[in-house]
Amino acid sequence: MQSPSLSSSSPSPSPSPLLDALAAHYMAMPPVAAMQPRVLDWEDGCLRMQAPLDANVNDKGCAFGGSLSSLMTIAGWGLAFLRLAEAGLEADIYVADSRVRYLKPVYEDLRVEVRLDTAGESAADAIDLPGALRAKGRASVRMEARTLLADGGVAAVLVGRYVAIARG
Amino acid sequence: MQSPSLSSSSPSPSPSPLLDALAAHYMAMPPVAAMQPRVLDWEDGCLRMQAPLDANVNDKGCAFGGSLSSLMTIAGWGLAFLRLAEAGLEADIYVADSRVRYLKPVYEDLRVEVRLDTAGESAADAIDLPGALRAKGRASVRMEARTLLADGGVAAVLVGRYVAIARG
Repeated sequence: MQSPSLSSSSPSPSPSPLLDALAAHYMAMPPVAAMQPRVLDWEDGCLRMQAPLDANVNDKGCAFGGSLSSLMTIAGWGLAFLRLAEAGLEADIYVADSRVRYLKPVYEDLRVEVRLDTAGESAADAIDLPGALRAKGRASVRMEARTLLADGGVAAVLVGRYVAIARG
Repeated sequence: MQSPSLSSSSPSPSPSPLLDALAAHYMAMPPVAAMQPRVLDWEDGCLRMQAPLDANVNDKGCAFGGSLSSLMTIAGWGLAFLRLAEAGLEADIYVADSRVRYLKPVYEDLRVEVRLDTAGESAADAIDLPGALRAKGRASVRMEARTLLADGGVAAVLVGRYVAIARG
């Protein structure tokens, strides 16, 4: 297995121990490490990640759909992790279901961003995820992740529901 | 990158050149090869595949959700490939969208089976995929893939829509 580049070796290293913890978490999972994901930044409720095309390429020379889906899935997981960790909370976080639309082929490195969906049925938990987890021991949130192209286009969209269950 | 086991090295080798071609196709994609998928069999319109847990494990010791999703996604792709190849047709096959429900954790090797969904809106194309491709140069089919547990339970379900476009 080729050694994946950690975010700490990037030109713009993650500025926080939490982002380093998230990157280490990803790299501890063999199928995730194989995608060589990098945590770019976490600002204003948006987590951005990246992965090299050559580790995620399909037979057509563009990104494998499963890699797009997986990268968006782990970005959503990471967002829940960061929201809770910032509040000093640890939880087991699971993806419960997701819907992916593949819109355009990706012939460049994969770039993904994810945000909580603060509208709709799970709005209350999303608006105050730490509060919901403290109050109920469990929270359910919806995320929207996008794979973005350098030309500004959207290559894929994932809407996923994640469940966090308080530890201990 | 660890060398993945091809189906031809399994104790129950795939009996047909088409299954060998499918396995080779998978292994040519780095992110798919990393999952070490194996084509088990293709009978009565059902394609069965498998992948080892240790190449697809998450931080909780069970299968990474992205691997479940990816394995079911490539199984659906493989089913369309086999249906068309049996009819002597080559096509570019894409997954257009998919919905995944994660129902139970998988603490064992991943086993997936996939069938065409011959009900609903894309029924006509699914019932005669080669005929639809010949007639229109393009066909759209829906599949249902399941991740099965050794105890008979269903760990995850993917419903995906695939588009095939005739080559040449």
